[in-house]
Amino acid sequence: MSKSRDAAPFSDARRLSFNQATAERFSLRDVVESCARHDVASIGVWRHKLHEVGVEHAARVVRDAGVRVSSLCRGGMFPAATEAARRERIDDNRRAVDETVALGAPVLVLVCGASPDRDIAGARAMVRDGIAAIESYATERGVTLGIEPLHPAFAAERSCITTLREARLLAEQFDSNAVGVVVDVYHVWWDPERTDEIARLGKRIAGYHVNDWLVPARDVLMNRGMMGDGVIELRTIRGEVERAHYSGPIEVEIFNEGVWSLPIDEIIQLTRNRFIACA
Amino acid sequence: MSKSRDAAPFSDARRLSFNQATAERFSLRDVVESCARHDVASIGVWRHKLHEVGVEHAARVVRDAGVRVSSLCRGGMFPAATEAARRERIDDNRRAVDETVALGAPVLVLVCGASPDRDIAGARAMVRDGIAAIESYATERGVTLGIEPLHPAFAAERSCITTLREARLLAEQFDSNAVGVVVDVYHVWWDPERTDEIARLGKRIAGYHVNDWLVPARDVLMNRGMMGDGVIELRTIRGEVERAHYSGPIEVEIFNEGVWSLPIDEIIQLTRNRFIACA
Repeated sequence: MSKSRDAAPFSDARRLSFNQATAERFSLRDVVESCARHDVASIGVWRHKLHEVGVEHAARVVRDAGVRVSSLCRGGMFPAATEAARRERIDDNRRAVDETVALGAPVLVLVCGASPDRDIAGARAMVRDGIAAIESYATERGVTLGIEPLHPAFAAERSCITTLREARLLAEQFDSNAVGVVVDVYHVWWDPERTDEIARLGKRIAGYHVNDWLVPARDVLMNRGMMGDGVIELRTIRGEVERAHYSGPIEVEIFNEGVWSLPIDEIIQLTRNRFIACA
Repeated sequence: MSKSRDAAPFSDARRLSFNQATAERFSLRDVVESCARHDVASIGVWRHKLHEVGVEHAARVVRDAGVRVSSLCRGGMFPAATEAARRERIDDNRRAVDETVALGAPVLVLVCGASPDRDIAGARAMVRDGIAAIESYATERGVTLGIEPLHPAFAAERSCITTLREARLLAEQFDSNAVGVVVDVYHVWWDPERTDEIARLGKRIAGYHVNDWLVPARDVLMNRGMMGDGVIELRTIRGEVERAHYSGPIEVEIFNEGVWSLPIDEIIQLTRNRFIACA
């Protein structure tokens, strides 16, 4: 259904940023070179892929290809059972900020982490404390921390921060240049408060991610599909994000075995085509 | 972690109601007779199980065993692609009300249904209209309609009503004797608004269901475990429900292959023991 407040269709892929998780089987270099071949201007980088090749090498590969990095994923994972472990997570987040700087990316995406011990309120407090501990380090280096609320299905294992409202209230405890919110349709499409909360976010929106929610859903981690293959009202949500004045890159981030099994050029072309047709 | 506002442990299973979905492989008669043997005073009934034996027969089995029925599951499923299909759903909900009466149960649990066509706002309107269409029919027969918000992982397939807040705002459009909210820990444990929303529900709470959220979660439909096997802060949530003055039956509803494969008496005993130890 097309609705009056839906965003207008795209006629090109200028705002597309290809998040490399969509091509999990390929190296950063493979992804960057395929993006350059298919006129995709930006990529989203994951740290485990970055560490495979080393930060300096990765920064050079990206620069040489003329591709921009829209974000580095992921910082966060603040809650831990011991004080020492929490300090270690904070140190690791500082390293992630450094890597974000090295790649010339404006945003470090935070997947905040889950409770180690059946205490979700306690975990939420650890997340707030963790962000407070790295805020100035990030700000001084020009990096925005982007809190990504994750679908509630991940609340026990990946992120105790689940809704846009919760992410916004957390972000608002910090300066708006320092801490924003990353809106991923997979995580928030179902939320009855979504429209209102995206409007309230305004300039706090630090990134926008698209993909789709497949049905029937079983394995929630691997249930993401290409735009158009699921039930998410993508143009409705983009309309909301645009009315909040977000005009930055739109990352396509898809964890899907079927997509992962394709050759890299097919993944990039499919992503590009579906981005224009459906996002 | 035990916290100061947690509910006190149970010393008996007086408030336990065994929802027959926990023993999916067994007939209503098997469940009722095992409950009677193990001093479980109430059961929750599912319609597909009820229809296997017929409503009159089921009512007699329950009455003869001296077991109460705390609720019938499920009404709802209001959204549909055509006007005719929606009318048919409403007729079916009226039949479900009649069955609730026949069993002497106070509550018909509503699993509200999902959008047939990528329009979750439209589906929510159909749910509201559906409840409005059966409200007086239920009230006249002394049946409370219990809206059960489902975990957002089910938003595309089972219920566009996902959060306690949304369920409460929907219920508040109707008389409080007519429409309440069923709180199932599996669906709401992660919600940052949970504590506040349960307090706001007050006498709108029409039922309380316990089970557990297992980790790692993959198949969200079958990811429920016995109380104590997962990460849900059960006594914390019961504390919230008790402060809202809910003192009715507590249903144990678990969809789990491991539990389903046990003999009926073992299922009932395990449920009873875990109810006392963990709920």
